Amino acid sequence: MNTYKRIVLAARPQGEVSPANFRLEEVSVPAVKDGEVLVRNHFLSLDPYMRMRMEDVKSYAAPQALNETMVGGTAGEVVESKNPKFAVGDKVLGMFGWSEMGLSDGNLLRKLDTTHIPLSAYLGSVGMPGITAWYGLTQIMQPKEGDTIVVSAASGAVGSVVGQLAKLRGCRAVGIAGGKEKCDYVVNELGFDACIDYKAGNLEKDLAAATPNGIDAVFENVGGKVFDACLARMNPFGRIALCGLIAGYDGEPMPINNVRMLLTMRLTMRGFIVSEHMELWPQALKELGTLVATGKLKFRESVAQGLANAPEAFIGMLHGRNFGKQLVKLI
Amino acid sequence: MNTYKRIVLAARPQGEVSPANFRLEEVSVPAVKDGEVLVRNHFLSLDPYMRMRMEDVKSYAAPQALNETMVGGTAGEVVESKNPKFAVGDKVLGMFGWSEMGLSDGNLLRKLDTTHIPLSAYLGSVGMPGITAWYGLTQIMQPKEGDTIVVSAASGAVGSVVGQLAKLRGCRAVGIAGGKEKCDYVVNELGFDACIDYKAGNLEKDLAAATPNGIDAVFENVGGKVFDACLARMNPFGRIALCGLIAGYDGEPMPINNVRMLLTMRLTMRGFIVSEHMELWPQALKELGTLVATGKLKFRESVAQGLANAPEAFIGMLHGRNFGKQLVKLI
Repeated sequence: MNTYKRIVLAARPQGEVSPANFRLEEVSVPAVKDGEVLVRNHFLSLDPYMRMRMEDVKSYAAPQALNETMVGGTAGEVVESKNPKFAVGDKVLGMFGWSEMGLSDGNLLRKLDTTHIPLSAYLGSVGMPGITAWYGLTQIMQPKEGDTIVVSAASGAVGSVVGQLAKLRGCRAVGIAGGKEKCDYVVNELGFDACIDYKAGNLEKDLAAATPNGIDAVFENVGGKVFDACLARMNPFGRIALCGLIAGYDGEPMPINNVRMLLTMRLTMRGFIVSEHMELWPQALKELGTLVATGKLKFRESVAQGLANAPEAFIGMLHGRNFGKQLVKLI
Repeated sequence: MNTYKRIVLAARPQGEVSPANFRLEEVSVPAVKDGEVLVRNHFLSLDPYMRMRMEDVKSYAAPQALNETMVGGTAGEVVESKNPKFAVGDKVLGMFGWSEMGLSDGNLLRKLDTTHIPLSAYLGSVGMPGITAWYGLTQIMQPKEGDTIVVSAASGAVGSVVGQLAKLRGCRAVGIAGGKEKCDYVVNELGFDACIDYKAGNLEKDLAAATPNGIDAVFENVGGKVFDACLARMNPFGRIALCGLIAGYDGEPMPINNVRMLLTMRLTMRGFIVSEHMELWPQALKELGTLVATGKLKFRESVAQGLANAPEAFIGMLHGRNFGKQLVKLI
């Protein structure tokens, strides 16, 4: 195999992302120099943050460069190594992007133990999305036993972990998701106390019924109407972890209307980016890894087959067509 | 004097507050029983929070009851006492409301030392508004030397203190106020680095010019467009103390549109009510009292004459027609 495939950002989206924003390229496998490691990626992680990177606006990270490999986390296997820390066959986590292969100097490459945890989980519940959930819950939402917490995009890679961790801490966990199938999964499989289908048309009423004692903390992935509905039910001194605003990633207006609740209920809202809190990753990974290895933290994956299908899978995820963690299988 | 005047809430406002929402009454001076203190109020404090209390909605405090004396802080003098802790002539701070007199069992009545601090200041810079400023600045905005802080309603009882305390902590202090006269006062008298006249029609542009290094922390008294303009200029990890939303107190829509900034800049926003943090009042009052007594903390007052003029003064304040702390002189 002298070549491999990668996908670059061909053009920035005007509104919704389309397949024309991406370009599949075939490139030569590089020669491995001293200290370097060549990795064959098995899984690519697709995550909502990538949508924001496609924009050329002021944000927490530099925009994704045009004509460069789309950013992304990957899990794969070392196929050639001139670095003493890595051997052929080692399973590794990297940030090689939308690409079948990647070359690394070994920095930022992490060896994975797949004895009790499947490789793909390191891109989900035991990876960045899981840590995002853990961070927002423990550091911002600070749930106490008996609290009611609400999480939007509840069946997704992040939301599913938020609710399960909250249940383990003695909370009432209420999810919000799109469609009956996802909601049933959130309650019956993940063990949330309730899940509201925002597409059913009774968001406010259903949320009120599911949160009879109000809401003490919110993990917000969506924004817009879903978030406003949560705000309206907040209890005094409620906490809001603002993790994502997928409802507005295409540039749609996404105002917060229930602003007065922030004042009258003395709420605390904090936006966060989990990669800025690396000092807590070991602690988070310890809890998440143990829970997944012992079957106490469940997850579900939507797996697209082959790199060429990554754009469609990504666009689908932005529209909520995924069910659980969205991955692309590359091998 | 066998009778005194008070003002009760006659009807809840439908939209804007009008004089018809209030009713002036003449009532009998009560007999003073053992343990009680009778106070002649000299000053009534008018504050924006009263507008929220007039509504019958879920909030941090019970709504103002109809046909009861309007809530409010007062500073006055003991005229009769059967309580050993208070003597006739003592200056006292109370919560007797929109009323010329008040009867107390001595609890919640605080003796005031007017040797170096004028009586009225205990309702302003050395009172609840000043402590509100101090709390939001020190506990939420947490300014570091060199930070740029922005405060709306900058010439008012709270905003004026926020900016001056920030200057004393080595910050760049930028105010937002309505009209050239107020802005000139904020810069020339209070010593802010800049003040933007939101009525001049160039809010975004003027704010950008006044905050060349962005904004690190905001003290928000207003909400709406003024707040959105600030959000757009926030630096990473910015802090927002949400103290008031006077732009929406009549029920006007007051959305936050720059929601994405909360996420991408990882902002922290917290609504607060200063009366819930009484444990910090002594510390705040020590700093504020010393600064006022030594002339280092300046303030200005709008004083309406006589209780009958309280409704008009209150309505004027809600429209920004006051200049500095709004008081009613009752004697």
